[in-house]
Amino acid sequence: MTEKEVGFVSLSKGTGASDASWREIGVGMLGYGFMGKAHTNAYKKIPYIFWPPAAKAKLVGICGVPQEAAEEAARRYEYGRATSDWRVLIADPAIELLDNCGPNNLHAEPCIEAAKAGKHVLCEKPLARSAGEAKRMWNAVRDAGVKHLCSFNYRFVPAVRLAKELIDAGEVGEIYHFRARYLQEWIMDPGFPWVWRLSRDVSGSGALGDLGAHIIDLSRFLVGEPASLSATTETFIKQRTKPGGGEVVPVDVDDAFEAIVRFENGAIGTYEATRFAGGHKNGLTFEINGAKRSLRFNLERLNELEICDVKRGQGQGFRTVSVTESNHPYMSAWWAHGHNLGWEHAHIHTLHHLLDSIANDTDVAPYGATFEDGYKCAVICDAILASSVGGERVSIQY
Amino acid sequence: MTEKEVGFVSLSKGTGASDASWREIGVGMLGYGFMGKAHTNAYKKIPYIFWPPAAKAKLVGICGVPQEAAEEAARRYEYGRATSDWRVLIADPAIELLDNCGPNNLHAEPCIEAAKAGKHVLCEKPLARSAGEAKRMWNAVRDAGVKHLCSFNYRFVPAVRLAKELIDAGEVGEIYHFRARYLQEWIMDPGFPWVWRLSRDVSGSGALGDLGAHIIDLSRFLVGEPASLSATTETFIKQRTKPGGGEVVPVDVDDAFEAIVRFENGAIGTYEATRFAGGHKNGLTFEINGAKRSLRFNLERLNELEICDVKRGQGQGFRTVSVTESNHPYMSAWWAHGHNLGWEHAHIHTLHHLLDSIANDTDVAPYGATFEDGYKCAVICDAILASSVGGERVSIQY
Amino acid sequence: MTEKEVGFVSLSKGTGASDASWREIGVGMLGYGFMGKAHTNAYKKIPYIFWPPAAKAKLVGICGVPQEAAEEAARRYEYGRATSDWRVLIADPAIELLDNCGPNNLHAEPCIEAAKAGKHVLCEKPLARSAGEAKRMWNAVRDAGVKHLCSFNYRFVPAVRLAKELIDAGEVGEIYHFRARYLQEWIMDPGFPWVWRLSRDVSGSGALGDLGAHIIDLSRFLVGEPASLSATTETFIKQRTKPGGGEVVPVDVDDAFEAIVRFENGAIGTYEATRFAGGHKNGLTFEINGAKRSLRFNLERLNELEICDVKRGQGQGFRTVSVTESNHPYMSAWWAHGHNLGWEHAHIHTLHHLLDSIANDTDVAPYGATFEDGYKCAVICDAILASSVGGERVSIQY
Amino acid sequence: MTEKEVGFVSLSKGTGASDASWREIGVGMLGYGFMGKAHTNAYKKIPYIFWPPAAKAKLVGICGVPQEAAEEAARRYEYGRATSDWRVLIADPAIELLDNCGPNNLHAEPCIEAAKAGKHVLCEKPLARSAGEAKRMWNAVRDAGVKHLCSFNYRFVPAVRLAKELIDAGEVGEIYHFRARYLQEWIMDPGFPWVWRLSRDVSGSGALGDLGAHIIDLSRFLVGEPASLSATTETFIKQRTKPGGGEVVPVDVDDAFEAIVRFENGAIGTYEATRFAGGHKNGLTFEINGAKRSLRFNLERLNELEICDVKRGQGQGFRTVSVTESNHPYMSAWWAHGHNLGWEHAHIHTLHHLLDSIANDTDVAPYGATFEDGYKCAVICDAILASSVGGERVSIQY
Repeated sequence: MTEKEVGFVSLSKGTGASDASWREIGVGMLGYGFMGKAHTNAYKKIPYIFWPPAAKAKLVGICGVPQEAAEEAARRYEYGRATSDWRVLIADPAIELLDNCGPNNLHAEPCIEAAKAGKHVLCEKPLARSAGEAKRMWNAVRDAGVKHLCSFNYRFVPAVRLAKELIDAGEVGEIYHFRARYLQEWIMDPGFPWVWRLSRDVSGSGALGDLGAHIIDLSRFLVGEPASLSATTETFIKQRTKPGGGEVVPVDVDDAFEAIVRFENGAIGTYEATRFAGGHKNGLTFEINGAKRSLRFNLERLNELEICDVKRGQGQGFRTVSVTESNHPYMSAWWAHGHNLGWEHAHIHTLHHLLDSIANDTDVAPYGATFEDGYKCAVICDAILASSVGGERVSIQY
Repeated sequence: MTEKEVGFVSLSKGTGASDASWREIGVGMLGYGFMGKAHTNAYKKIPYIFWPPAAKAKLVGICGVPQEAAEEAARRYEYGRATSDWRVLIADPAIELLDNCGPNNLHAEPCIEAAKAGKHVLCEKPLARSAGEAKRMWNAVRDAGVKHLCSFNYRFVPAVRLAKELIDAGEVGEIYHFRARYLQEWIMDPGFPWVWRLSRDVSGSGALGDLGAHIIDLSRFLVGEPASLSATTETFIKQRTKPGGGEVVPVDVDDAFEAIVRFENGAIGTYEATRFAGGHKNGLTFEINGAKRSLRFNLERLNELEICDVKRGQGQGFRTVSVTESNHPYMSAWWAHGHNLGWEHAHIHTLHHLLDSIANDTDVAPYGATFEDGYKCAVICDAILASSVGGERVSIQY
Repeated sequence: MTEKEVGFVSLSKGTGASDASWREIGVGMLGYGFMGKAHTNAYKKIPYIFWPPAAKAKLVGICGVPQEAAEEAARRYEYGRATSDWRVLIADPAIELLDNCGPNNLHAEPCIEAAKAGKHVLCEKPLARSAGEAKRMWNAVRDAGVKHLCSFNYRFVPAVRLAKELIDAGEVGEIYHFRARYLQEWIMDPGFPWVWRLSRDVSGSGALGDLGAHIIDLSRFLVGEPASLSATTETFIKQRTKPGGGEVVPVDVDDAFEAIVRFENGAIGTYEATRFAGGHKNGLTFEINGAKRSLRFNLERLNELEICDVKRGQGQGFRTVSVTESNHPYMSAWWAHGHNLGWEHAHIHTLHHLLDSIANDTDVAPYGATFEDGYKCAVICDAILASSVGGERVSIQY
Repeated sequence: MTEKEVGFVSLSKGTGASDASWREIGVGMLGYGFMGKAHTNAYKKIPYIFWPPAAKAKLVGICGVPQEAAEEAARRYEYGRATSDWRVLIADPAIELLDNCGPNNLHAEPCIEAAKAGKHVLCEKPLARSAGEAKRMWNAVRDAGVKHLCSFNYRFVPAVRLAKELIDAGEVGEIYHFRARYLQEWIMDPGFPWVWRLSRDVSGSGALGDLGAHIIDLSRFLVGEPASLSATTETFIKQRTKPGGGEVVPVDVDDAFEAIVRFENGAIGTYEATRFAGGHKNGLTFEINGAKRSLRFNLERLNELEICDVKRGQGQGFRTVSVTESNHPYMSAWWAHGHNLGWEHAHIHTLHHLLDSIANDTDVAPYGATFEDGYKCAVICDAILASSVGGERVSIQY
């Protein structure tokens, strides 16, 4: 236990809110898979973790195919009803917020229709399969005047948010370098079957949109706008067999990409993502070198931020900061210092941020990523694909 | 994303359970502070994480003082009712399980009374302030024939459970050494006020019962029974001021202890716990050296287990294993490899284990700690206090 | 102590060599600074560390300016004589080997003249200020038929050599990725004065030739030939003040560069070097991801190689291998496992390798870098500078 | 390269010493094994590393058996002559300093006789097989008025020395905890043969005197005098076979020990050493927790000291300090920051310290360990053995 523990005879934090009446926001969930589970978990935890909550999600409906699976998901997660047709969610007046956790090819149309129907929209990353598609989505939510968030959830890891706050406060100084990698290994086995993430038609791109989008967004969040870049991509395993069948399908997305980037503020750096880095499970890492401080982050040790002062002295070195103190971002809501958070918690903070934005009519930006951010990330992804063909340096123009 | 992701058009795991009907277990919670929050969080998550669940907790009532605080906790956590008298929980026929998260001096009587009333009992660690008190509690639950669990939650960290499974499978071989430390820093400031954890009357002991109990339990879980030990304790700050007032109170519990231990199976090792180790937030670490393998664990990086083969070769070294694969303990219920769990998850696994034991009438032991384990841990704690007086080696006798 | 210790009454390794007569190789040293010290240290240690040695260096003469400093260096390091004119070394028949530790603008002419005079030549990296200059040097030593080594000393760090041996033995499998960085911080202070390393005329380039050359050479050593690359460079501090005086001089070399590289064998990766990475003293790191294994190295922990098997299992993870076992490269000559080597030891191994090559007339390649390797590295450096202008992808052609 | 590099046209450090005339100190070496090699290496490097040196060692003679091995060692290391009778060294008037690297049972008599002959004496650790034997040695050197050093070389690792300087400067504050382990693995294989280090008659003790002595000395160096302790020892493999023969010999020394210690200044802590910790090659680690700072050290990463400020804040954490800056202890003599030292360098610093003490008639203490320190360490080792029998707490009395 630690000093933050509240004993049996003490008052818990939040006392006085006994007569709080919170806003209820009806949620329609599109997708019941990995991300649907992560988001639903977040909706369920927000009310008792961020006490008293500004808003509570009301789990109105969930959509997926086949219908029976959606129905089971509804029972599991306690959604009010299930459908296999996302237009049912759009049509439901009890739903104020569409949460789109579908595959990439199901991002644009449901989001646009939801916005047209006046619903707030949350969409998983990458926002779309191309910058053009993303632009249409951004236009739609902007025109509709609804809240919109693209779920770049790693902005809401407390250590990442602390990095942001340090940079904004001038504690890092002029930034010279940003280098980020997102390394995974899950398709290294040539026998690993073809899945929709390996299809350009469904996904838009491979490691680039799935993993690279995260670090591209973090670079914009932390460093600023890229001015130009050069890139290369590679597909190491050119074809794969469909699950359970003999059909061999070409892989038409990237297994990996590398890019060098020049930022508008003069910093230079690298982006890299791959699904062929053995030993790396979920290896998002970045490092920033500024005139005053260096910062390092590793998603597989997400409670830690490494900070190094540039000033010389007998005691200079990277400090491993446990970003779990009550004065660290979001941590006062949780347990006690050294009582680590996990991967799911970034989603909880993200959705809490959106619900608060809706309830209090505040901006999702700058801490939350909007559809504008999703669009700009898509522009950068497209530039990487364009550069990789002939290798020339490509300017980023939104 | 990883290979475990379920796409939009796939069936989620657990399909077919659509007609599942689970057992509902009425829970009465004693305490709404740090641990009450952690346990309640667990009850809420179990039903949709372990799908379909063997049992769901029904949050019947919560007890705490003052009454208004208990009422607010009830609203926050969605308990059916609130009380400031724990006997109300015992008397409630809708409550099948008493979850005791009260301070140490409120462990014995409510647990014993609950057992007498035929209720299952979960009690936070340390089970009691002394071996004698713990013995009465164990006798009570045994006599009553109810399920009982002492919440040594770190047994349920997947990396710790993996260590246990490796040892049980003979993968570690004869154990030569166990060394464990639990290092914290929260009361190093002499100006930190007196709190109930610094009172022998309320807590029984200081760092020993609060922190040491965890590593003592892990030693029994992983290595086996201690045969004898020698110990010393120290209180570095002898008196403190009560919060908000000028009253200076003597600190009559240990700030730290050190012990050397001989196990029945021939292994030797050390126990240490302190609240005076600057830089350590929640630093429970242990290492086991066996004839075949060494194992290392650090609670501040709880998703990792370090494993080293003893056999020589050009490639020998400690491997940092990310204990997040779907074939690792408990992980198939969660996200995907490299998507880390946090501190709260061990509680979720612990309470899931207990609910399953109740629903299926299976043994809490050996993976879960029972009141017998809580009692044996208390015997060892008492031996440490006894040895520390004159420094002699003390035999452990249950 | 460890099992390798030889007790008082045992015979030391090398017994039986009592009548060994080794070759003496006269050395002329150009430069008495940092590298001159490191190389001289190596010559002095080789005879008793690699016992019985194939050859011993005889320290014939040392050259530097001013004359008095060269004379003091001769006294310090026990060279037979001192000169401020390198042609004196070339003219000295007692000198068989010219060791060129001069600044980059003094690499070409002395090396070429030495080769013409039939002397073996060792030259510090980068071999030259441009590929053209390097080509002339390579031609000279090839034409003269002398031994030649470009001091890419990190090839001779035991952990790096182990990586090479694992790759050559097929233990890593097809290589997908190589990423390397060489990060330093020594000129971050804008008040740090202008030094010759910041002059293109003297150095050829900045971080690129000084630091980048090392990782480029390692990429060729470990992965294979680069096919093409895209790059960018930056000079963060555009001008500096000369030491002790008010003259402000433009900095006309790169402070940092970033490159993405495609290898002939299909691997892709990144090169990066900078002198603006706060907290990094001598931060050469690389990682290789192969189909069977991943390998990681960090020069600031140079006794360690991290190895990860790609094959899944409950125990997969990066192993931190202490490359200090007697069956690891070069280690049988030293102390005992866990008794670490330092930075200087790679130089000792490098020069030992060259002396052996001279004494036994064996090839310096493939483990040692030749002037051909130095030339090829210079081609790649030139390509990086060329690409950085307009950002286009540049093919590597030797 | 770094800012410390001296260019070709600059003057090297030490200019002006051109007319230095240093003291030559005749050395007689007892033992040509592991330690004899390490010490000889030190004598050879001191003159050109610590320039201009206060004193240079003249390698007069080396002693070992059999005679031919000693002769070969003399050729290898360039000693003037070889003998198999250590009394020959004592009788040699050219020898001013006896360097005793023999096995433990050859420490006392040669050291005592050397002192009686007026020679300075350096002896490897542990000083003797018992406190009584050590006392006789200390008395002898004190009575003779010669310089004496017990080679606790780890005091001279720059990171350890930095720790000492921080503590002495009050930067760590009141010390609460010291915990140290020295973990090795070299005799874990039951088939590993009997060697003299496993004989009480030759060695005095096992892991205790070989490894434990180092951490006991460091505790006295860094924390202060132990007041009392409790201990246990164990011999896991009770008998072993002699090398090359069938004779099975009982192991009559400890394979491992554990101790808890109370210091005079109120700190408490642990000592542990073992040869049965798989994966640990040379694993000396310690941690100190003070009221102001915590310090951590690991011999397998000997260039690093981890420092943590106790003061809370958003950026608190253990800093990994590369103890290689020119303002760190001993480092100005070496290379440049980030250019690591190895294990051998601590011996170089130790012997440099002794030669300087002889040349300038300065005290070996407090930075160097004297025979008094060797004696006090032996008292503590004896106390550990005494305590381990019955387990009682033993007071330390010198």
